[in-house]
Amino acid sequence: MQKNIYLDYAATTPIDPRIKPKICSLLTKNFGNSASIHSCGQKAKLDLKKARKEIAGFLNCQEKEIIFTGSATESNNMALKGIAYANLDKGNHIIISNIEHPCIMNTKKWLETQGFSVSFLEVDSQGFVNPKDLENLIQANTILVSVMHVNNETGAIQPIEEIGKICKKYKIYFHTDATQSFGKININLKKTNIDLLTASSHKIYGPKGAGLLYVKKGVKIEPLLHGGEQEFGLRSGTINTFAIVGFSESVKILKKEMKIDFEKAKKIRQKISEKLKKIPNTTIISPENSIPNILNVSFNNIEGESVLMLLDQEGICVSTGSACSSKDLTQSHVLRAMKINPQVAQGSIRVSWGRFTSEKDINQFLDVLPKIVKKLRSYSPLK
Amino acid sequence: MQKNIYLDYAATTPIDPRIKPKICSLLTKNFGNSASIHSCGQKAKLDLKKARKEIAGFLNCQEKEIIFTGSATESNNMALKGIAYANLDKGNHIIISNIEHPCIMNTKKWLETQGFSVSFLEVDSQGFVNPKDLENLIQANTILVSVMHVNNETGAIQPIEEIGKICKKYKIYFHTDATQSFGKININLKKTNIDLLTASSHKIYGPKGAGLLYVKKGVKIEPLLHGGEQEFGLRSGTINTFAIVGFSESVKILKKEMKIDFEKAKKIRQKISEKLKKIPNTTIISPENSIPNILNVSFNNIEGESVLMLLDQEGICVSTGSACSSKDLTQSHVLRAMKINPQVAQGSIRVSWGRFTSEKDINQFLDVLPKIVKKLRSYSPLK
Repeated sequence: MQKNIYLDYAATTPIDPRIKPKICSLLTKNFGNSASIHSCGQKAKLDLKKARKEIAGFLNCQEKEIIFTGSATESNNMALKGIAYANLDKGNHIIISNIEHPCIMNTKKWLETQGFSVSFLEVDSQGFVNPKDLENLIQANTILVSVMHVNNETGAIQPIEEIGKICKKYKIYFHTDATQSFGKININLKKTNIDLLTASSHKIYGPKGAGLLYVKKGVKIEPLLHGGEQEFGLRSGTINTFAIVGFSESVKILKKEMKIDFEKAKKIRQKISEKLKKIPNTTIISPENSIPNILNVSFNNIEGESVLMLLDQEGICVSTGSACSSKDLTQSHVLRAMKINPQVAQGSIRVSWGRFTSEKDINQFLDVLPKIVKKLRSYSPLK
Repeated sequence: MQKNIYLDYAATTPIDPRIKPKICSLLTKNFGNSASIHSCGQKAKLDLKKARKEIAGFLNCQEKEIIFTGSATESNNMALKGIAYANLDKGNHIIISNIEHPCIMNTKKWLETQGFSVSFLEVDSQGFVNPKDLENLIQANTILVSVMHVNNETGAIQPIEEIGKICKKYKIYFHTDATQSFGKININLKKTNIDLLTASSHKIYGPKGAGLLYVKKGVKIEPLLHGGEQEFGLRSGTINTFAIVGFSESVKILKKEMKIDFEKAKKIRQKISEKLKKIPNTTIISPENSIPNILNVSFNNIEGESVLMLLDQEGICVSTGSACSSKDLTQSHVLRAMKINPQVAQGSIRVSWGRFTSEKDINQFLDVLPKIVKKLRSYSPLK
């Protein structure tokens, strides 16, 4: 069987083989319920405690500020709904950027049906929000600002330090969805004014099924999952020790290898960018100030989906926009927010790479891609 | 190191070693995001489809009626909140039993803060609800009845067929939390009028991190997790293929071995009951009509927690009440609902066993337990 060339790390990453033995052994060892007071439960509780300490250390925050969830989607739902419902005495107005992940966008829609009001902080043509615009949107009843750290479709890095300062000035909670940046860009919670932060295990070589919401001490938040009051009373449900330990093991590797990963990704980005620029009528959509492992590029006059399909036939996996909405063939809300010409937007693909991407993978991709673009253009009625 | 004797299967089960190789191999194989349209994603999607088919077959329902979640807690939150918010045009009244799991109890409390009204269907001294009482509680604005199939603290099997019939007569949705019964008692969704049903992987020898909510075709429900619209638009978040396949693998084993497990559990129950009856001043709290793998028993004049601790010192793990609230040393709401004398209730422990419990384990437990009870009673100021 042909080995796939996987260039969709922004959708999900393979598990680092180095953590596999540890998480597999946990499946049958320390299987207890961490809420049980007997020794079988306490062993699982200790695993959980170690994992929390590891990740709190990485983010430079307190252990009690890490709330483990099942996914970034759950963390983002919890952040928005949890702050909204717990702070109604202060107001019912929320501000989010207009390039957030679908889980923030659809939570917004839900909150609007429940009497909350949500304003969009719009991005410019490069896909960046402007902190100055934020001040104009803030009202007396604003309780939360949520702006993602790195956009999942373009890789654009948002100015979260400035946004954090403004939120602090107006005493408004600031949440950032750091799903795409966690483990790629340093986040120091002692230095940046972030009240809530979302991260996910399966984007950093850990297993699916574990996410976290950082909740700064003192932040008033309502749980999304009510029940047995695990996670300091903020997130109920039997602790998925297995996935959480896998998450912390992948963080442990990041502590040593984050810089190496970053430099490697940067080199690949440069190589891909240079080659793509040589394909005529090609638009690099990702701005310069992007995370180094994502490149969104558009080939005029052809469909991104067609490029994806033909690459897939050659065993190369890329995506168009977010995996979470990739079956939805309507235009990406992110590219629309950037006011990209729809004809350009429809020809876009997202290529993303990571720790296990080899030079050979990239060479093969760069060999195949121009041929596919040429072939599709020869068929295109728009040529 | 001493091998633990694990008698807390109702809190969580060990993973069946037969499914471990399959789920471990999945960690690095088919790791794609099942929402991705390329072949890496489609492989994961196929795994998900097979798992859904397996479980739908087991429950005798349609594949589209199975919504995978992260846990039973999530499923229960989704059932109550999802029905509540989606059916406000019909009413805002809900009925639940007063022995539900903490995740239903605390969701009730939350819904009450949001303008919903919740009535308790009370149990008798044996821990059973009476379907006749239900009819008296139903109002014109009742939208949902939620009664667990089997109670997690006593094992009492509730009359869900009769409750289902009453709900059907009054056109009210019926939800049952089948976390403790799924895989132990046959549930045929074609024959029983159940609109929503909760089950969990880690109670049936599968991994933690996977649960399900059966949602009958046509039921109006609002998602709890908004986002990328996975799971037929009802539950967003990257699919945890690994845990879901583990869940379905454990269901596959149940299809063959459920009866064997049941008979084995019944024999153990009989053996334990007989021996316990010989300990003076002992009350068997679990009623006759219970699931065969749970026994709740109380030793007068001593504390259940002390029994648990001394058993733990001997390497034997049992629990007091639900693991989810076991750190909360206030009296069990289930035993209180049964109007058990508080002095009796405080001396109760829950013993639960399963597929991997050996005769030797039970013999050792039954050898040690009377000695511990005797010892504690000799210290007790209440003797």
